[in-house]
Amino acid sequence: MSRTIRLAAAQLGPIQRADPRRVVVARLMALLEQAAGRDCDLVVYPELALTTFFPRWYTEDEAEIDAWFESVMPGPETQPLFDLAQRRGIGFSLGYAEKTPEGRHFNTQILVDKTGRIVGRYRKIHLPGHVDFDPERAFQHLEKRYFEPGDLGFPVWRAMGGVMGMLICNDRRWPEAWRMLGLQGVELVMLGYNTPSVNSQKADEGPADRLFHHKLAMQAGAYQNSCWAVAVAKAGDEDGHPLIGGSVIVDPDGKIVAEATTEGDELLVQDIDLDATRFGKATIFDFARHRRIEHYGLITGQTGAVPPPEGDA
Amino acid sequence: MSRTIRLAAAQLGPIQRADPRRVVVARLMALLEQAAGRDCDLVVYPELALTTFFPRWYTEDEAEIDAWFESVMPGPETQPLFDLAQRRGIGFSLGYAEKTPEGRHFNTQILVDKTGRIVGRYRKIHLPGHVDFDPERAFQHLEKRYFEPGDLGFPVWRAMGGVMGMLICNDRRWPEAWRMLGLQGVELVMLGYNTPSVNSQKADEGPADRLFHHKLAMQAGAYQNSCWAVAVAKAGDEDGHPLIGGSVIVDPDGKIVAEATTEGDELLVQDIDLDATRFGKATIFDFARHRRIEHYGLITGQTGAVPPPEGDA
Repeated sequence: MSRTIRLAAAQLGPIQRADPRRVVVARLMALLEQAAGRDCDLVVYPELALTTFFPRWYTEDEAEIDAWFESVMPGPETQPLFDLAQRRGIGFSLGYAEKTPEGRHFNTQILVDKTGRIVGRYRKIHLPGHVDFDPERAFQHLEKRYFEPGDLGFPVWRAMGGVMGMLICNDRRWPEAWRMLGLQGVELVMLGYNTPSVNSQKADEGPADRLFHHKLAMQAGAYQNSCWAVAVAKAGDEDGHPLIGGSVIVDPDGKIVAEATTEGDELLVQDIDLDATRFGKATIFDFARHRRIEHYGLITGQTGAVPPPEGDA
Repeated sequence: MSRTIRLAAAQLGPIQRADPRRVVVARLMALLEQAAGRDCDLVVYPELALTTFFPRWYTEDEAEIDAWFESVMPGPETQPLFDLAQRRGIGFSLGYAEKTPEGRHFNTQILVDKTGRIVGRYRKIHLPGHVDFDPERAFQHLEKRYFEPGDLGFPVWRAMGGVMGMLICNDRRWPEAWRMLGLQGVELVMLGYNTPSVNSQKADEGPADRLFHHKLAMQAGAYQNSCWAVAVAKAGDEDGHPLIGGSVIVDPDGKIVAEATTEGDELLVQDIDLDATRFGKATIFDFARHRRIEHYGLITGQTGAVPPPEGDA
C-alpha cells in the first residue's frame, strides 16, 4: 500500500480584528475547495485560524477575551467547514482558541479525518510572551495571559495512513517538543503559527531574522527526528501589526520542498511519501541504538538553566 | 570587564594513515603560532586531531588499535604543543583517542587553559556507526567498536572568562547534548569533527548534503541554547577517503559568522562577545519561564522510538 499523502498547507493572509468568523470560515472553505480540486488528502491551517492574533491586545475584560474563543467545535460558524471537508473527503488540521466546558482556555489545534471526525487534539505547551502588560515592549505578546499551557502532553495519532503529530508556533523552537513526537515514531508534524515580523523586545530583529529562525527550527526538528513537517502561517498585516509568511513543507532530510511566496491566502501542495521517513529512523537517528538517556537527566530534572558558580575558574 | 574572547578554529587538512604524530603535532604548532600572531586567546582543534580517522579501518589486532590511542596526555609527542601554548599564553581544545590507565578507550576532547593546565575533559557520548564489520557499507564507521560511550556526562567549566562546553562530531546532531549544556548556562560550545563526505549507507548523500546537515545541527544548537559554537573539521582526502570541511563559528542567534574556505590546514579567527549570549537566554530561551518538564518524560524515560500500535486508525 502506498503511503503517499497529498498534503496542502493552507496559509492565511491577515485577519483583522473586526473580521467576523463567517468571513474567515468562507476563506478557509475556499482554500479547501482549491485543495479538493487538486485531489489533496489533508489540509493544514494556521494557529488561531479563526481570529486575528489577539494576544497582541491587552484586556482585563472577560467577555472581550471570551469572544476570541470557541466553546464548541464544530460550532455554528465552523460547521460548514466540517461539512465541506467531509463531502470532499479531505482531512484537515485547524488551530483555534479553545474554551473548555470548565472554562479553561487553551491555544489548540485539532486533526479531523476524512469522515469529519475529530481524531486528534493538541494544546500548545510552549506559550511565549508574558502575563501582564509590558510597557517595555513595542507591542504585547500575551499568550501567557490568555492561555494555560497545554495539559495533553505531546500525543501522536495513527491517521491518514501514518503517525501524525501536532505542534503550535513557538513549540517549533523547542527540541524537546519534537523529540517527544519523534520518540513516538512521528512521520508528519503539522504546525501552525502567527509570528510577528519584528521581535517586540529587539527592534533590529526583523522579518529576515524571524524567517531564518522559523526555518532553522523546522528544518532541524524534521531532520533530527526523520519526519515530514509542515508549518503554516497566518501572515501579513493585521491592524498595523505585520506577521511573517514563509509557510513551508520540510522533508525528513531537513530540506524545504515547498515554500509560500506571498503573505496572503495561499495553498502549497506536496505529495509526501511517509516511507521516506524510514531511512533516517533506521540509521543515524535510530534512537534505540544511539541515544544515551543515562546522561540526559537535567532535561527532565531541571526547568531553568543553572550555571556553575562564579569564581570557579 | 570585557568578556570578548579572540577565538580560533584550527581546521586540519587530512592526516594519512602513515603520518607520524611528530609531523601532525608540528602542524598543530604551526596553526598555534599563526593564532598567537593574531593575538588569539583560544584555539580549537578537531576531533581525533593526532591521527587519521581510523574508525574507517577494521581490525581485530589490539596492538594495531592501541597505536591510535594516547595513554598519557601530554605525552612525549604532544608535550611540545602544550609548551608552546603555555609560552604563548593561549588556551586550546584538542580531540584525540584516549586510553585510560584501566585500559578503557574513549573518543576524547580536552580543554587546556592559558597556563597549560588541562581544565576540562569530555568523552564523546553519541558514537555513530557500528561494532562489527559491515559488508553492506561503502566503507566502515567503527566508532562503536573502538570506543566506549563517554562516561563523564556533559560537563561545563568556567574558563576563559565564560562557561565552556565541549561536544564531539555526531553529538551535534543530538539536541539532548546541546540542551544538557544549555541547562548549565553554556556560553561557548567547542566541537571537533571528522565527517565522511558521503553517507556510507546512502551513496547519493554527498558532500553538499553532509555540509547542510552539519551546519543545520550547529546553527540550531547554538540558537536554541543562545550560545556561541565553533565546529572544527579534519577535512580532505585521507588515504582515498574524503572528509568534509566547513569549519564554522556560529553566533548565539544561529548565524554563521566565520566559515572555512579550504579542506586544508586553515585558521578562522573571530572575536566573540560572551555577553551576546544573554539576550536569548533572558527572553525567548529563558528556560525557567518556558520549559515544561512535566511533559518531557519520554526523553529520559525511553531510549528508542515506540510508535503507536498499527490498526489504531
